[in-house]
Amino acid sequence: MNTYGDMFRVTVFGESHGRAVGAVVDGCPSNLPLNEEDIQKELNRRKPGQSIFSTPRKEEDKVEILSGIFRGKTTGAPILGLVYNKNMRPKDYEKIKDTPRPGHADLTYKLKYKNYDYRGGGRASGRVTIGHVIGGAIAKKLLSYTYNIKILGYTVKIGKIEGDFSYYKNPEVFENKESLKSLEESIEKSPLRCPSTNSVEMEEYILKAMEEKDSVGGVVEIVALNVPIGVGNPIFNKLNAELARGLMSINAVKGVEVGLGFKSAELYGSEMNDEMYFDEDKNIKFRTNHCGGVLGGISCGTPIVLRIAIKPTPSIGKKQRTINLKTYENVEIEIGGRHDPVIVPRIIPVAEAMVAITLADLMIKSGFIHPCSL
Amino acid sequence: MNTYGDMFRVTVFGESHGRAVGAVVDGCPSNLPLNEEDIQKELNRRKPGQSIFSTPRKEEDKVEILSGIFRGKTTGAPILGLVYNKNMRPKDYEKIKDTPRPGHADLTYKLKYKNYDYRGGGRASGRVTIGHVIGGAIAKKLLSYTYNIKILGYTVKIGKIEGDFSYYKNPEVFENKESLKSLEESIEKSPLRCPSTNSVEMEEYILKAMEEKDSVGGVVEIVALNVPIGVGNPIFNKLNAELARGLMSINAVKGVEVGLGFKSAELYGSEMNDEMYFDEDKNIKFRTNHCGGVLGGISCGTPIVLRIAIKPTPSIGKKQRTINLKTYENVEIEIGGRHDPVIVPRIIPVAEAMVAITLADLMIKSGFIHPCSL
Amino acid sequence: MNTYGDMFRVTVFGESHGRAVGAVVDGCPSNLPLNEEDIQKELNRRKPGQSIFSTPRKEEDKVEILSGIFRGKTTGAPILGLVYNKNMRPKDYEKIKDTPRPGHADLTYKLKYKNYDYRGGGRASGRVTIGHVIGGAIAKKLLSYTYNIKILGYTVKIGKIEGDFSYYKNPEVFENKESLKSLEESIEKSPLRCPSTNSVEMEEYILKAMEEKDSVGGVVEIVALNVPIGVGNPIFNKLNAELARGLMSINAVKGVEVGLGFKSAELYGSEMNDEMYFDEDKNIKFRTNHCGGVLGGISCGTPIVLRIAIKPTPSIGKKQRTINLKTYENVEIEIGGRHDPVIVPRIIPVAEAMVAITLADLMIKSGFIHPCSL
Amino acid sequence: MNTYGDMFRVTVFGESHGRAVGAVVDGCPSNLPLNEEDIQKELNRRKPGQSIFSTPRKEEDKVEILSGIFRGKTTGAPILGLVYNKNMRPKDYEKIKDTPRPGHADLTYKLKYKNYDYRGGGRASGRVTIGHVIGGAIAKKLLSYTYNIKILGYTVKIGKIEGDFSYYKNPEVFENKESLKSLEESIEKSPLRCPSTNSVEMEEYILKAMEEKDSVGGVVEIVALNVPIGVGNPIFNKLNAELARGLMSINAVKGVEVGLGFKSAELYGSEMNDEMYFDEDKNIKFRTNHCGGVLGGISCGTPIVLRIAIKPTPSIGKKQRTINLKTYENVEIEIGGRHDPVIVPRIIPVAEAMVAITLADLMIKSGFIHPCSL
Repeated sequence: MNTYGDMFRVTVFGESHGRAVGAVVDGCPSNLPLNEEDIQKELNRRKPGQSIFSTPRKEEDKVEILSGIFRGKTTGAPILGLVYNKNMRPKDYEKIKDTPRPGHADLTYKLKYKNYDYRGGGRASGRVTIGHVIGGAIAKKLLSYTYNIKILGYTVKIGKIEGDFSYYKNPEVFENKESLKSLEESIEKSPLRCPSTNSVEMEEYILKAMEEKDSVGGVVEIVALNVPIGVGNPIFNKLNAELARGLMSINAVKGVEVGLGFKSAELYGSEMNDEMYFDEDKNIKFRTNHCGGVLGGISCGTPIVLRIAIKPTPSIGKKQRTINLKTYENVEIEIGGRHDPVIVPRIIPVAEAMVAITLADLMIKSGFIHPCSL
Repeated sequence: MNTYGDMFRVTVFGESHGRAVGAVVDGCPSNLPLNEEDIQKELNRRKPGQSIFSTPRKEEDKVEILSGIFRGKTTGAPILGLVYNKNMRPKDYEKIKDTPRPGHADLTYKLKYKNYDYRGGGRASGRVTIGHVIGGAIAKKLLSYTYNIKILGYTVKIGKIEGDFSYYKNPEVFENKESLKSLEESIEKSPLRCPSTNSVEMEEYILKAMEEKDSVGGVVEIVALNVPIGVGNPIFNKLNAELARGLMSINAVKGVEVGLGFKSAELYGSEMNDEMYFDEDKNIKFRTNHCGGVLGGISCGTPIVLRIAIKPTPSIGKKQRTINLKTYENVEIEIGGRHDPVIVPRIIPVAEAMVAITLADLMIKSGFIHPCSL
Repeated sequence: MNTYGDMFRVTVFGESHGRAVGAVVDGCPSNLPLNEEDIQKELNRRKPGQSIFSTPRKEEDKVEILSGIFRGKTTGAPILGLVYNKNMRPKDYEKIKDTPRPGHADLTYKLKYKNYDYRGGGRASGRVTIGHVIGGAIAKKLLSYTYNIKILGYTVKIGKIEGDFSYYKNPEVFENKESLKSLEESIEKSPLRCPSTNSVEMEEYILKAMEEKDSVGGVVEIVALNVPIGVGNPIFNKLNAELARGLMSINAVKGVEVGLGFKSAELYGSEMNDEMYFDEDKNIKFRTNHCGGVLGGISCGTPIVLRIAIKPTPSIGKKQRTINLKTYENVEIEIGGRHDPVIVPRIIPVAEAMVAITLADLMIKSGFIHPCSL
Repeated sequence: MNTYGDMFRVTVFGESHGRAVGAVVDGCPSNLPLNEEDIQKELNRRKPGQSIFSTPRKEEDKVEILSGIFRGKTTGAPILGLVYNKNMRPKDYEKIKDTPRPGHADLTYKLKYKNYDYRGGGRASGRVTIGHVIGGAIAKKLLSYTYNIKILGYTVKIGKIEGDFSYYKNPEVFENKESLKSLEESIEKSPLRCPSTNSVEMEEYILKAMEEKDSVGGVVEIVALNVPIGVGNPIFNKLNAELARGLMSINAVKGVEVGLGFKSAELYGSEMNDEMYFDEDKNIKFRTNHCGGVLGGISCGTPIVLRIAIKPTPSIGKKQRTINLKTYENVEIEIGGRHDPVIVPRIIPVAEAMVAITLADLMIKSGFIHPCSL
């Protein structure tokens, strides 16, 4: 339930205002160079307080590796990555403990588990994704070390504002080392992790929502490069199915697409099908990549292209109607202001992590990476 | 890899032009009344030849249950459902065996497994979903018997033609027993399984594509009713994540949405959040169902609403460019005409099956259904 | 529950007097030469009626492979091996249906599942192990094809009669190709699968028990040769732990030993430890093999040596006291004579099968055999 | 690989001389009262330095729970139990790093993983079982809270000295609350956890071995009381098979028996079978418990009786022959004295833990304990 992956397994733990959060990563083969910095740099990308668009909660999110590394390399034993919570304010949540927030997991957790750690959403908090990112950082290192695989997420839409950059609009950017590097830089520089030229419009859109004590959602695209042909095991372990599961298990994700996604439904077969050809060196190539890198559940060598729909953050300052589970009354609430008006940019490292973990797991299961030792 | 589910497990087997296809269903609790007719009626809905829009391959798809039933009820032992293939024409595929069809799994299977049973796509054929439907029929019976759960799939879009019926356009239809029954009837009567009044437009759209030896895709909506509050186990066993995985593991599915899906990304938090209230009997109710029945990965008692994007059938008669893996030449192919110009209506029972199996598995894992005996 | 293995997975199905028994084997890599004869020869070794010491039930146990093979080789898809039951006599069991047989699963199955297929023990019958043997035959072929691994089981004890042949008494027999071949022959020739020179004593012991309408048990030793160093994944996927689980899941097995087993507990460390040395070619060798081929849960290159204790067949003709679940009376029963007075020789192919499946699964998981394609 | 259990899952991590050891326990239902003391008391029983028969390594083994508890009760979220290592002396192991100790995992880990944390055996150290005990303590609490289940382990043999107390010698002790309590006390008082009257003989036996710088093994019996009828899921999830796997995954265990174990092989069916009867209140009873509480892989309501063979500790001061992996020479070693001359008494809490975790997992899977919330 809190473990993801079969051969490369990430078990996450911790609550928003508990003592610590983190992950145990099991199944990483030995001899992978790995240190805390590899993980820290990914956690820093997820950290709150990176821009005015995120919660001001102050957390260093400093990771400690407590097992599984010897002389700078993995040993094949489980790796515990731990982050102690610092800025815990459990009292902030006392007043909302009986009034489940609309759009939140408060109600379902409370009814399912009875003893619900409601402080900051407890287990249902986005803070739990620190564990995902720890697992993802290790998976990314493994994928990069063995196959030079690169995973890149960026915002393509905020609310109703569609960006002018996306894989299908600008596929050539992903084929060139230079342009790829500059893409990466522009993503990391943008507070919304959006490389589109119209990202300022998006920022204004969010600022307007913030004035109304409201929140916005968006769409993120994730591209994985250099995945070899043959990853994914039909029928029920298909690469796209596992990726969909991984991405949909991130809070706030309401839709997942592979390749052209819902657009595919509108095309004719003759438009959709990616024709193949041999290039001059007799390498197999595709004229297009409408499939998004997956055919029959197996990677086909082209970039893997995914998109996820992220709903607006449910915690908003605006007045909302809800129920009081103690008094059985219909009531109104206004949620205090420590929340992200847009979670999209901070979800990106989490989405990349889930793609990385899924790929690492499937590449071991498909025989591309040795399960025990590099 | 060919097993789906942890506690309610469906293992599918068989090839398009092999001797048989089917499934072993393990983990169905004992004492569920079950007979071959329960399965046959679902297989009939998936069968080829139901309309002019499907392949003319002649298959009775007659299921035999070979184990796990005693005196008309399950025993808790694995249930083998077997369908012998009758209309096998392996020779039809000889000419395409070295020229992978664009948009198909031919290439990836061939490169991954080397010994690829290319006859009719072998293991990658839609025929394999007979196993899914067998598993789904048993899951449906279990869900209906224990919680009166109903799973309903229907077409909401074909190519560029959007239907005028959908859950969000007509939510009231799902609240009333009579209207629900008439909805079901109109679905089953329609060759496209489309209850929209403009479904004739869709049919014309397909006929036109058929004239061009082309194919079309579409969008299917699936609604599950009467799922109790509490199904789904965060973090990585979320109801929506498992459903996404199950649906995305169906061939041709390129996108999955829950609730408002990609539409959510465009809304403000105040628009998206489903407010709660107590009705007169102090039952918890939601004013809207934008979330599609899932909050924090756990069912919240409202209808579960899913949508999947289905790409156009890749097998088309139109000339296409591809490669010859034996001669290393770039070539052209025209695929013979025994294929569905639109697979959407036949995918619906398969999608319902995946939803049913996922729900059965999670309801056992969430403690709603006893794992061993009813 | 009815699936064994994670990467090489065997799902067994069927009842003693149902329509069929068999297995679906998933995860066997493609390109392994395999035909029905490979499986049939193992089933023949398990078949009833091979000697006066086994049940006279007449079953050909003819296997049909219905999927997963193409042009004489595996394709990586699941392999269905099916055996139709022929000699079903459900009526024989009517009189015992309310009086659970002592030492049998009748009572526990009945209480756990309520709807218990009591005919011949139904699902709890030894007949179900046909599925194990099908899975084991494929695993054996895979192990032999890839690493020339050989798995050899034989009786070392019947009742109180200990045989004079065992691995620790005659280790040299296993080092020499000629002596090994002659060992195999003497095993297969013996009705008890016992290569000891005093096996006639054992036969007399059984005959005497048969006269008393009683049954006997015994001890089986299983040796696996040529397993490379490195198989098994600590902490909880240890080679010995998985083997113990596999063997203990065979009906009637009450104890499992690895290497010197319970004898180890009596030794001093200096006696037990297997000292290492380099031979002339600088190969690592062990002076002894007290550990039975496993150190720290990982194979160490020496023969894997296992022993299992098999209790006497519970079905005996002798009068026994039991209960009537319908009348709530204490009663006496005498069970009809169609049962094996000693199940030991027929369990041997099943035990070998479980060892083979366990090894195949772990060798894939440990990276020795490619998970998808040879 | 480092996770045990399917529904109640324990993931262990840490190395002997790394920064910390511990476990994440996932799948414990919410609302179980639990605090650090529940775990600490079990860790104290496993701790080194309890008697002259154990290693003098000084470790407090103080556990911290860092997640999963809220207001003194579990929440259904994963529980992280962490123990920081204090007394690390990595330098002690420098001299043996190239000379694998006979009977140890040094060689197999080194060859399998290459980057082997050899300090104190690293991952292969008994210290790793702190994680097992943390998981076991939570499982014990769950079993005791829900079904009043009690798990009791004790020494029945040390080297060649057989104790005069065992379940089959003294079954009546387990039926009476008073005698059971006094049994428990006598176990905890004994440095060998041996309630036999001749345990002093055993102590002398060990002392003599210590003088020779040698070590001894032994046999432990574990009894589980109050397990209800119906736990265990055939065919491959049998209670006895899972228990065998769990126990065999403890380092140094070379054999496992259920009920009469290897003794069963010597009996006639009429001796072995446990006859049933109705007592005056029409409860089902067994006249004997030769089966050790399991019939057909399912618990039958009688005490579950298990025995494990523990080999002598491989680390001994006596001179031994081995190899130098760096110089390729045959060499001799004498291992420094910080090791347990007998590990048997300290393995007992670990064995109890594995039995408890196995039972907790199977009782959830068999529907006896709700998977999410008590």
